[in-house]
Amino acid sequence: MPKPPVPPEISEFLAKPNPAVIATVRPDGQPVSVATWYVWDNGRILVNMDEGRKRLGYLRANPRVSLTVLDGDDWYTHVSLQGHAELRDDPDLTDIDRISRHYTGQAYPKRDRKRVSAWITVERWHGWGKLENTDVAHA
Amino acid sequence: MPKPPVPPEISEFLAKPNPAVIATVRPDGQPVSVATWYVWDNGRILVNMDEGRKRLGYLRANPRVSLTVLDGDDWYTHVSLQGHAELRDDPDLTDIDRISRHYTGQAYPKRDRKRVSAWITVERWHGWGKLENTDVAHA
Repeated sequence: MPKPPVPPEISEFLAKPNPAVIATVRPDGQPVSVATWYVWDNGRILVNMDEGRKRLGYLRANPRVSLTVLDGDDWYTHVSLQGHAELRDDPDLTDIDRISRHYTGQAYPKRDRKRVSAWITVERWHGWGKLENTDVAHA
Repeated sequence: MPKPPVPPEISEFLAKPNPAVIATVRPDGQPVSVATWYVWDNGRILVNMDEGRKRLGYLRANPRVSLTVLDGDDWYTHVSLQGHAELRDDPDLTDIDRISRHYTGQAYPKRDRKRVSAWITVERWHGWGKLENTDVAHA
């Protein structure tokens, strides 16, 4: 699997408001995946969670994450990225508003819950379908 | 998160040829996610891999998997399932043909590579969006 930086066509794809799934690992070794919004920010990935999410505890114990981003028109085209997350409180809901606007054009509607951001540094990535890179035939 | 069996509306959703992402864990603790075809078979999940996939080695070391299944029309609706996989060779390509027909209506086109199936037993699941269950507010 290639290392960053990703080529321009991958970056252009990731900049769209695509469907995505994030995976973390529970302390007992069970992977946990869930659909998520994300924002691609110059090579880093921003995601954001309600402060009550169990996923936050998993990330504090093991910051490693994987994100698979699907092409909304043809999900055979997809990009997966592996990396690690740094958590930051989002007290003014600045980050979740940014992410919400990216997907919906609107600020995030729920204002009564604290939120936490995870900034993901990408260590490896691979592309499939229209975005396939050549060394992943047996990835 | 609820335990199986899943209610009928979840089973009905999972029976469709939906976009899905599977997550496994590398021996060093890194989660790895990738888009996948799957078939829902009476409460179990069938996926299938080329014998060269690194994911097979990860599953032999740690059989725990997570699958997130998205509604292709509105991916805010999604179901995630956690469980463990049992691997079985697919020497006649019976399983991959079954999965391929489910998604494309056709047998799997590549006949020159060995394939391995993973039968996933579901231990926990949760639904979101139209399929939301009540106890996942802070899942």
